[in-house]
Amino acid sequence: MPTPHEIVARLTLEEKASLLSGQDFWHTQAIEGVAESVMLTDGPHGLRKQGGSGDHLGIGDSRPATCFPPAVALASSFDVDLVHEVGVRIAAEARAEQVAVVLGPGINIKRSPLCGRNFEYFSEDPWLSGALGRAWVEGIQSGGVGASLKHFAVNNQEHDRLRVSADVDERPLREIYLRAFEHVVTHADPWTVMCSYNRINGLHASENPWLLRTVLREEWGYTGLVVSDWGAVKDRVAALRAGLDLEMPGNGGVTDAELVAAVTDGRLDEAAVDRAAERVLALIQRAATAGAPRDPATVHAENHAAAREIAARCVVLLRNEPVGDAPLLPLEPGSRVAVIGEFARTPRYQGAGSSRINPTRLEDALSELSALHDDVTFAGDDLTEAVALAHASDVAVVFLGLPPEAESEGFDRTDLNLPPDQLAMLEAVLAVQPRTVVVLSGGGVVTVPFAQRVPALVQGYLLGQAGGGALADVLTGRVNPSGRLAETMPLRLADSPAYLDFPGERGHVRYGEGVFVGYRWYDARDLDVAFPFGHGLSYTTFAHDDLLVSGDPSGFTVRVLVTNTGDRAGRDIVQVYVGKPSSQLARAPRELVGVAVVDLEPGESSIAEVRVPTGQLAAWFTGRGWAVEDGEYHVAVGTSSRALTGHTHISIAGDDLTEPLHLESTIAEVIADPIAGPLVAAGLAEQGADSADDVEGVGQMMMSFPIGRVVRMSGGAVSTDDIQALLDAANAERG
Amino acid sequence: MPTPHEIVARLTLEEKASLLSGQDFWHTQAIEGVAESVMLTDGPHGLRKQGGSGDHLGIGDSRPATCFPPAVALASSFDVDLVHEVGVRIAAEARAEQVAVVLGPGINIKRSPLCGRNFEYFSEDPWLSGALGRAWVEGIQSGGVGASLKHFAVNNQEHDRLRVSADVDERPLREIYLRAFEHVVTHADPWTVMCSYNRINGLHASENPWLLRTVLREEWGYTGLVVSDWGAVKDRVAALRAGLDLEMPGNGGVTDAELVAAVTDGRLDEAAVDRAAERVLALIQRAATAGAPRDPATVHAENHAAAREIAARCVVLLRNEPVGDAPLLPLEPGSRVAVIGEFARTPRYQGAGSSRINPTRLEDALSELSALHDDVTFAGDDLTEAVALAHASDVAVVFLGLPPEAESEGFDRTDLNLPPDQLAMLEAVLAVQPRTVVVLSGGGVVTVPFAQRVPALVQGYLLGQAGGGALADVLTGRVNPSGRLAETMPLRLADSPAYLDFPGERGHVRYGEGVFVGYRWYDARDLDVAFPFGHGLSYTTFAHDDLLVSGDPSGFTVRVLVTNTGDRAGRDIVQVYVGKPSSQLARAPRELVGVAVVDLEPGESSIAEVRVPTGQLAAWFTGRGWAVEDGEYHVAVGTSSRALTGHTHISIAGDDLTEPLHLESTIAEVIADPIAGPLVAAGLAEQGADSADDVEGVGQMMMSFPIGRVVRMSGGAVSTDDIQALLDAANAERG
Repeated sequence: MPTPHEIVARLTLEEKASLLSGQDFWHTQAIEGVAESVMLTDGPHGLRKQGGSGDHLGIGDSRPATCFPPAVALASSFDVDLVHEVGVRIAAEARAEQVAVVLGPGINIKRSPLCGRNFEYFSEDPWLSGALGRAWVEGIQSGGVGASLKHFAVNNQEHDRLRVSADVDERPLREIYLRAFEHVVTHADPWTVMCSYNRINGLHASENPWLLRTVLREEWGYTGLVVSDWGAVKDRVAALRAGLDLEMPGNGGVTDAELVAAVTDGRLDEAAVDRAAERVLALIQRAATAGAPRDPATVHAENHAAAREIAARCVVLLRNEPVGDAPLLPLEPGSRVAVIGEFARTPRYQGAGSSRINPTRLEDALSELSALHDDVTFAGDDLTEAVALAHASDVAVVFLGLPPEAESEGFDRTDLNLPPDQLAMLEAVLAVQPRTVVVLSGGGVVTVPFAQRVPALVQGYLLGQAGGGALADVLTGRVNPSGRLAETMPLRLADSPAYLDFPGERGHVRYGEGVFVGYRWYDARDLDVAFPFGHGLSYTTFAHDDLLVSGDPSGFTVRVLVTNTGDRAGRDIVQVYVGKPSSQLARAPRELVGVAVVDLEPGESSIAEVRVPTGQLAAWFTGRGWAVEDGEYHVAVGTSSRALTGHTHISIAGDDLTEPLHLESTIAEVIADPIAGPLVAAGLAEQGADSADDVEGVGQMMMSFPIGRVVRMSGGAVSTDDIQALLDAANAERG
Repeated sequence: MPTPHEIVARLTLEEKASLLSGQDFWHTQAIEGVAESVMLTDGPHGLRKQGGSGDHLGIGDSRPATCFPPAVALASSFDVDLVHEVGVRIAAEARAEQVAVVLGPGINIKRSPLCGRNFEYFSEDPWLSGALGRAWVEGIQSGGVGASLKHFAVNNQEHDRLRVSADVDERPLREIYLRAFEHVVTHADPWTVMCSYNRINGLHASENPWLLRTVLREEWGYTGLVVSDWGAVKDRVAALRAGLDLEMPGNGGVTDAELVAAVTDGRLDEAAVDRAAERVLALIQRAATAGAPRDPATVHAENHAAAREIAARCVVLLRNEPVGDAPLLPLEPGSRVAVIGEFARTPRYQGAGSSRINPTRLEDALSELSALHDDVTFAGDDLTEAVALAHASDVAVVFLGLPPEAESEGFDRTDLNLPPDQLAMLEAVLAVQPRTVVVLSGGGVVTVPFAQRVPALVQGYLLGQAGGGALADVLTGRVNPSGRLAETMPLRLADSPAYLDFPGERGHVRYGEGVFVGYRWYDARDLDVAFPFGHGLSYTTFAHDDLLVSGDPSGFTVRVLVTNTGDRAGRDIVQVYVGKPSSQLARAPRELVGVAVVDLEPGESSIAEVRVPTGQLAAWFTGRGWAVEDGEYHVAVGTSSRALTGHTHISIAGDDLTEPLHLESTIAEVIADPIAGPLVAAGLAEQGADSADDVEGVGQMMMSFPIGRVVRMSGGAVSTDDIQALLDAANAERG
């Protein structure tokens, strides 16, 4: 088979340009005898393959596909193997539908809980987003189907998303917003990366050579294809020049002609067209290697069963206080259970927009719970009926959540409140039935002012088509929950980091909180929260003992003995956080650097082990780049960013961060330098300006003056050249 | 007398250049028969005139001068007339010492309570800073002595102050950090403006043509002299080119020669040298018009007496809860008073650094209180003695505060805590004497975790050389306090707006909180505070009634009936706040726009009136500039930013903020436009792309797409030129 390079060499400019935009809404351009047309289609919690040319708006019907839990819930598993499995299973459905690339995963950071598309994203934490994104990509690509890592980059809101400029300093850009992308690109090699709609520091992602070339290709070594989000290209020539290979959707060749014209009149180097065309051809060749499809009906049946098991791993038990002698969950067999709230019967199980899937089946919690538990009654939205049922039962399970119209791709929420009628329903139920369990549905966090007044609280997010069964499994104890919050649940919107600059104004949104996103903010400002990042309970209990950290030059290993101290098999998610208490940089008290998933029988113990490569400790030093700072790091294990079960520390030999002395170095810096200090003092003395003693005795205020300026203030007694010569000598001696 | 222009025309290049730096540390360069040398010297809460060449470091002695309350306290008067009087009185001392320019006022915004130089600045609020700064400048210049408005600009910390770049978006830059400067420059015409040490968005203030030329001269029309802060010039040629006229201190002609060389080899336009030289000559001519000096001894005697009255107006009574049937303050005549704490005997009355004055006299609170009250005993730092005295007295007055080494020009604080030994002393006293008054000293706010446990709390800040008498006057009731906090006292440092990005890292400090500085932050985030901005009690009480707002095209007038409802003459400070609830911009709930000072006898009423020019409502619209937004504004009067005594609203006809439609206008914007909407819909229909009905029915997600891009997504059915023509027609019809 000829290589893409060889093929491109035989094509005309017009043919090459034609490869660089879609043939229609979902397919690449075919060239007879040269290039097949391949299909890209929406995801990522399942396949959304539309018939015909489609409309991309979620209006037209798509082919049935298994709806797995959307990212918001999937992330709560904290389980890379589970996420990998989802990728593998979606790949099987994609092959059956002749889809070459599924447009996912979405790994943007949840900067604000208001973002309308948070349900499609994993976390507020870049390590977790990166680890899960990598697992998804490796899973789907292991099945011969390509991923499209999106939305690259800094696409953290829906408001004005096609124009808004995310104005963000380089350190948060690197440490928070690009870090997960870097991890996935460098470890999992996604077939495609999708550029986002927004601007970054004034420049559209689609036209951003720093983003698409300097960072993605030169620094990260990416060799795959960069595709536009659908409609993200504003200036096709500028986009190609910046490194955007494939424009989607197709536009009838209008922009292909723009490329041809630009090459013809010398504004665009034809080599740029060649490179992009080669990448499209390479993608087509990659797609051709996919294995044979299996029978779709079999795949769907297997995937539905798996979707239930997967969803159950995503449920987060937020609270389960004893009432009398036992907690309310799991539900006591034989108890009279009043299920209240329409979401139990008409589930919210996925979000709206381009990711909306036409599920193969749909389970509701009411039916599934009724199948597992004997005495279940139900009231939907009728308050009187609900109160009566709750009163007549042993326990009430109240389903609350965001109504479908509250969240979608395309717009952001403006508050975190549950609808008032739902809160009123809950209050009425609580008034007659204190034994009440609340189950939350929705693609983002809500405020839970009632949290301390309900004994049990379950975060169900959006659990996919088998979420009803999964909730029934957890409520009845068939599954012991192990989900953990991948985002903080704040007490109030006003406490959230981006509260005052979200969604921005006049086309700009300033990321004023810098690196302090999510729990980094709440922890650094010591703000109370409703439930912290990483929090999640189990029907059993775990103990952590014997924390041990052992390091070597390439990193360190954290080991902790985990014991199931309860009477039920269960899963613990051990989280490892690292902090750097003494630093040149303003840092969060702790940052997640790894997790271990541990399944234990009652009474069983196991050593959980987390390996942290030294590079994971790197921070962005503006003006220099990534570096690992020398010195002591705090290492903690815990069950959330706030519930730490063990602490220790480790000393790391980091990178050399010293810089050459120069005329703008302060007197304090020069005097502190072991080589330059005595040299400069002696030099000054020699010049007759001052004795060395005087230099030491200079007032504290003068210590912050750059040495080059102070010298000038000597009235000409010492020249700038003299000082520069001394600094040069000092720098040379330091090597 | 020849004009500066005429003089400059006769000078050589070398002579002109010589005028552009100092003759020594404090004087401008003389040219025999052409230019006198004039003296600039430190201020601004008094005169710091050093003998000889001085050292600027606060080490060398200076001539005795009256030490008025530093800005932190003076601002608490909220009284422009009082500040004006201080300016007039300092001018008299300056004339007596042949000083032409006093280096003040400092009107930088208190971005963080940690800034080491906050004691020299007025407020966290730009309106108040501007009003007080203007009064000081008008006061001193009315006496024939020049002011130097400083530090221009965005100099809000001491850490790394000669190099750090204040990275701040244009809206906060304009609305918060430059607004007070704009007010003073355009209303009071300070003889000189002093550029700051720091960088602004990467460029040193001294080399910043945007700051010194575009904003200061072109936009604000400033014609006076720009002088460097002492040592702020890094590149003399770049600085002159940017608009920095006079470099201080002198450097023996080194940089004059640099200017000459730059002109000679064509790197610098000689006209720039001419302009700067003319401004130096104009300053010298202005200085020559100062009136004859009066006898210094007489001036000092008058100023000391005035300093006591002025200081008493600056004391803020934070808390005065009844104990039994009456509050502790004023002290009951004849009561046994235990004065505790060394600050009562050894007062902190001014800050450290370039503003440190050698006072003509110095009062301490202990002596002054003893002179006014019969039974006063004292214990300094001895805990046992203090407890015994407190126990044996009717009331304890405990002096707490920041030790002198805790704050200075040159470094910032790292916490807001009082020293542990002082807190321990207070606890010990409180344990035996609940009838305890706390008096705070210090140049910045501290946290007061004990606030709810002491019945009376007095904020004394730094009150100048007569502060001891002023405190005695207030404690005994000889003066009824009327001071108001010009800055918020937070509950915790971690609540403060700049907590996570102060003082920055690696040479940059990001002003991530944007416009939400001071009370704007605490109010917008609804954070509890210890004492809010504007707060201050009196020994009497006031009622506000009959709030009335009447507008005309140039502004509006707020009137409120103020009644002294207590039994003692007193002063109320009526504060007017404005908010814009529905806005294109993220705004603080309320912003101070004016105050009225009202003196009332018991039972007396008076109408307080505050005029708010429409321009005061202007906000900065990025990409457009200052504009007053149309619509309803909330107007409130109150006794702090949180204690509002009356609300109303007013409708303002603002500026036209609509912009021409263009290809990046969203479909939503185009359809919403009364002219373009139908035109574009009809146009699209005519082109056969879609019916007008379809355009209306397009999915919500598509509404945020720029019309230029959607058109292209039509597959070529409509051209960009067609749409541009339609938009042009719509724009033309709108005029």
